[in-house]
Amino acid sequence: MVQGVVDLEQRSVNAIRALAMDTVQKANSGHPGMPMDAAPMAYTLWTRFLHYNPANPKWPDRDRFVLSAGHASVLLYSLLYLTGFDLSLDDLQQFRQWDSRTPGHPEVGKTPGVEVTTGPLGQGFAMGVGLAVAERFLADHFNREDLTIVDHHTYAIVSDGDMEEGISSEAASLAGTLKLGKLIYFYDDNNISIEGNTDIAFTEKVGPRFEAYGWHVQQVDGNDVPAIDAAIRGAIAAADQPSLIIVKTQIAYGSPHLQGSAEAHGNPLGVEEVKLTKEALGWPVEPLFYVPDDVLQSYREALPRGRDLATDWDRRFGEYERRYPDAAAEWKMVMAGELPAGWDDVIPSFTTADSAMATRAASGRVLNAIVAKLPTLMGGSADLAPSTSTNLKGYGDFGTEDWSGRNMHFGVREHGMGGAVNGIAMHGGVIPYSATFLTFSDYMRPSLRMAALMESPSTFIFTHDSIGLGEDGPTHQPIEHLASLRAMPGMTTMRPADANETAECWRLLIQRRRPVCLVLTRQNLPVIDKGDVIRAGVPRGAYILEEASGSGDPDVILIATGSEVTVALAARKLLEDQRTRTRVVSMPSWEVFAEQTQSYRDTVLPPAVRARVSIEAGAGFGWRQHVGDLGEIVAIDHFGASAPGPVVMREFGFTPENVARRASTCLARVRSASNA
Amino acid sequence: MVQGVVDLEQRSVNAIRALAMDTVQKANSGHPGMPMDAAPMAYTLWTRFLHYNPANPKWPDRDRFVLSAGHASVLLYSLLYLTGFDLSLDDLQQFRQWDSRTPGHPEVGKTPGVEVTTGPLGQGFAMGVGLAVAERFLADHFNREDLTIVDHHTYAIVSDGDMEEGISSEAASLAGTLKLGKLIYFYDDNNISIEGNTDIAFTEKVGPRFEAYGWHVQQVDGNDVPAIDAAIRGAIAAADQPSLIIVKTQIAYGSPHLQGSAEAHGNPLGVEEVKLTKEALGWPVEPLFYVPDDVLQSYREALPRGRDLATDWDRRFGEYERRYPDAAAEWKMVMAGELPAGWDDVIPSFTTADSAMATRAASGRVLNAIVAKLPTLMGGSADLAPSTSTNLKGYGDFGTEDWSGRNMHFGVREHGMGGAVNGIAMHGGVIPYSATFLTFSDYMRPSLRMAALMESPSTFIFTHDSIGLGEDGPTHQPIEHLASLRAMPGMTTMRPADANETAECWRLLIQRRRPVCLVLTRQNLPVIDKGDVIRAGVPRGAYILEEASGSGDPDVILIATGSEVTVALAARKLLEDQRTRTRVVSMPSWEVFAEQTQSYRDTVLPPAVRARVSIEAGAGFGWRQHVGDLGEIVAIDHFGASAPGPVVMREFGFTPENVARRASTCLARVRSASNA
Repeated sequence: MVQGVVDLEQRSVNAIRALAMDTVQKANSGHPGMPMDAAPMAYTLWTRFLHYNPANPKWPDRDRFVLSAGHASVLLYSLLYLTGFDLSLDDLQQFRQWDSRTPGHPEVGKTPGVEVTTGPLGQGFAMGVGLAVAERFLADHFNREDLTIVDHHTYAIVSDGDMEEGISSEAASLAGTLKLGKLIYFYDDNNISIEGNTDIAFTEKVGPRFEAYGWHVQQVDGNDVPAIDAAIRGAIAAADQPSLIIVKTQIAYGSPHLQGSAEAHGNPLGVEEVKLTKEALGWPVEPLFYVPDDVLQSYREALPRGRDLATDWDRRFGEYERRYPDAAAEWKMVMAGELPAGWDDVIPSFTTADSAMATRAASGRVLNAIVAKLPTLMGGSADLAPSTSTNLKGYGDFGTEDWSGRNMHFGVREHGMGGAVNGIAMHGGVIPYSATFLTFSDYMRPSLRMAALMESPSTFIFTHDSIGLGEDGPTHQPIEHLASLRAMPGMTTMRPADANETAECWRLLIQRRRPVCLVLTRQNLPVIDKGDVIRAGVPRGAYILEEASGSGDPDVILIATGSEVTVALAARKLLEDQRTRTRVVSMPSWEVFAEQTQSYRDTVLPPAVRARVSIEAGAGFGWRQHVGDLGEIVAIDHFGASAPGPVVMREFGFTPENVARRASTCLARVRSASNA
Repeated sequence: MVQGVVDLEQRSVNAIRALAMDTVQKANSGHPGMPMDAAPMAYTLWTRFLHYNPANPKWPDRDRFVLSAGHASVLLYSLLYLTGFDLSLDDLQQFRQWDSRTPGHPEVGKTPGVEVTTGPLGQGFAMGVGLAVAERFLADHFNREDLTIVDHHTYAIVSDGDMEEGISSEAASLAGTLKLGKLIYFYDDNNISIEGNTDIAFTEKVGPRFEAYGWHVQQVDGNDVPAIDAAIRGAIAAADQPSLIIVKTQIAYGSPHLQGSAEAHGNPLGVEEVKLTKEALGWPVEPLFYVPDDVLQSYREALPRGRDLATDWDRRFGEYERRYPDAAAEWKMVMAGELPAGWDDVIPSFTTADSAMATRAASGRVLNAIVAKLPTLMGGSADLAPSTSTNLKGYGDFGTEDWSGRNMHFGVREHGMGGAVNGIAMHGGVIPYSATFLTFSDYMRPSLRMAALMESPSTFIFTHDSIGLGEDGPTHQPIEHLASLRAMPGMTTMRPADANETAECWRLLIQRRRPVCLVLTRQNLPVIDKGDVIRAGVPRGAYILEEASGSGDPDVILIATGSEVTVALAARKLLEDQRTRTRVVSMPSWEVFAEQTQSYRDTVLPPAVRARVSIEAGAGFGWRQHVGDLGEIVAIDHFGASAPGPVVMREFGFTPENVARRASTCLARVRSASNA
């Protein structure tokens, strides 16, 4: 290679380093060290391998790039600016400022070219696995022998911290099992974390560990661009294994005093050290944010390259449309996140002629109906498919023997599952779901939060939703989980009361295209004889399921969710027998109810009716907002117990008799307050 | 070996299998498959190696045994009965029934001999690592060259599910780094999980993976007792590595139709299959719960063996007491969970002469003071020691080079850290703490729940507790976390308002000996000029920090926690200037406040004062219970933003002006309601 090219290459690498230093220094906040050490691998990938189109960041067959080490956001922002995305030097100069397009960690929706939100370590690692699953699934579904429209890689840069997080282990093991050959990760092995040298906490051999997972593993020097280039070729060639390229780097490469030091991880280098580093790299100290013309020009070749890729794809897709018009129409539909007309006609409805049925079972019925109409609905559970009723019968297992399989076997890896489902959802084109027990929502909570933050259309099914599950006992009986999920911004929780509410929740959640937790029972529940009311009510979040006798406002309102709605209905009978005019409100979703107009909400819960009782077999935390100062909360604010479900429910007060008693207490309190 | 001995051995193994089948069948609920396959390893360990004293399950130098695969609880209950713990056949017959001593999953406190609660997979794996850390630390601290009083192993049986969970990967990597040679795990490799053969989701090579972590790995046939015996000897001999013994088993071993089948995992075999299995094993079909006399007698040799172990230890401890009376007294104190007299005299107090200080910094000051008085206080962070101010200066790093080190480096492994801290706490003798950012409490939530369930004295420090952390943005800014932690039964959350409240929270939490989340700021806060009020108030959970002017009930009460207390105090000034008589209540702990008498609580929040405003930079979820129907909740019910902390706080309304405005609105509403 001639000297000029090597020089341009080196200066292109150093341009990233200089931008990273200046950007962090200007913000006086951020993480300069890793962008500086990872510049050569990023440069090599983004200028020689990565398929993308800066003019259309959403071009569907682009390679996906995930910066799992999200704290190195300035690396990504620098690349986006350099390669010609709609991100300017001004944007870089607003790094970490109010309302800027360059927030502290990459956030999807804020910055063109950011595929997923990252920062919490390991999430990007697992989402990358999901992105690769979606690619593999869609490739199998849409490609034809003579025409390929889905064929892209998923790349990520991951850090020591990613490697230490359990979610990454889970996702890596899953990726190895699935032999996801188009997944290529760079491990920035800079040996430094916040507390110092990684040896103090992390002496494992990462390469052999990943080989044990079934990955293809290579190791290169982080400043050796030709070696990085060769390793990427090697990783692409290893087409039936995910690839890990271990890149040996020195944090804050080039800094005379901070290279290789933990201090360079999360703090600006300081004005003086930035100056010294630029000098050491042979870079002009000023102006700040300087990028030589020839370097910028070289990076900007990404624009025509991207245009050519997109043009070539458009040509192929045009041909595809001619030869396979139905498939092409389906492609457009699923990539736009649209649903086929009449997709929900197949959703079953249930009558009292149906025997009592757990809502998990009803959910399984619905899933197995709609799968026929939703060609890219897929999902699975963390080794609980039979228990969560999530098996799609006759639709095969996704894996090396059948890439068209619609059933994912995530293994006992809730967190990896959550991350992977988010990745599948963020890829576009696929409607994914996961499933486990509600108590194990805790294991995947960071991924639930990522879904909420990204507003990804991820569906999380959680069964065994209360002490009603019985014998498995307190370790398996959720208590605080409903409150914890409802407290999370951006998440919608749904807890249906019977088979029909379950069906309507599915209709609603598929249409919402936002993250939803669907919370279901293990135990059987009768079908409530109110199909029409339920169908009209569920989309409002809460509704009057059974009105009080007589006219005018009721004496008391019982508000229940899920399995406790049946208890509320029975309690209502007892109360009405005592001439207490009792309304039952079913409230499958607090969040959906909160979205309704004040006037609708006041119809369901009239402000004048202060005698209100909530009934839910979970923590009472938060219910005060619905029952008010004088209301009564029938809940369980301690851990459960191991015994048959009906015994546990009875012992902890979830009986019609106890609810009726509590309602009478409440009513007396309200009357006494009114008379006072 | 003579035939008779082999026969007794085989029948002893089969006794466990028969008890497991009968117990699960009688309950018609449970997991028979794994106890049946794991019977030989359990038999070998419990009759030949494990040091324990059935007559005194809490004998301090016992080996710790953890059944990480808690669903196999009947295996543990059978062993406890057979070896002579205070657990009867009647107890086994009450398996999974209301109020029995044999709940669905092992629960500490319910059953003698159960060291830790298990069931949620991976928790036992990580707690075992903590138990081994505690042993190593105490051994170094108390043993003398001529006298050893701490010398025991930690054993666990772990399952495929444990191996797939991320927390186990984290804990295994940590154990490898720490070279915990007295940690010996059996991996019950039965190749079956709930969805079927583990190959569908789990094809990794577990042995090489653990070798990569630095473990000593062996593999044996699960029915080969001599081979298991030899492997345990090998594991003990490998004294500077944790050991994994991969035991190849067949689930439901002996069952003609269900051996090797997923159906045998979580369901009773059925009466007919139990009969056939007993026949196949050469076991009498009846009576149920049958244990041959010679088998029982052989197991019960554990009683004299245990007595001898304890007697020998007592003799050594007597000698220890003579030679090292101070150390012996300290041993008794720490093992009893007691604190040295005057331990808290060293807790610093702060005055307004101190400059503004983040509560994380105040916490670091307190920690570094009390460590001198609490000889077994130790802990660390998930690679955030500088950020969480948890480094114990001058107290060394716990590890192979210094087993007396008091600083743990957990690595970027929040979940493994939570599990390990619980294990350390459950061992007894050590006061452990962990630390990370509040938003990452999500990563360790299942371990937080285990702490709450076990009531273990685990302290969890969470800093960077609100949007006030600034630039790192929404991925790092907690919103729903306080609500989620408060919703968890058995957990105490504390969020101090300044340096003095922080000091008092430490005093309180060390005394409580129960799980506590201590929630601290990144940003500086002024020291509040009310040291005495704070010292008296914090132990009540909430208290009047600044009374309203004049006498009688105030017009309005501002209730705040943490960093927002300062905002409330400033808002009070604005309100008082407008002649609104304003009380400020600081509420560092909802749970502690809830423990106070109604009369105290009514003093702080008089029922007659309905104009109440809560101010907390987190989700409003749950606050209605304190502010009432007419109250006002100043909160943030959406995700945060990346910008400097003061900007974010201001933009989202956490200013004195906005609080004063909201208080006025609230007061107007209350007056209007009173006039209505």
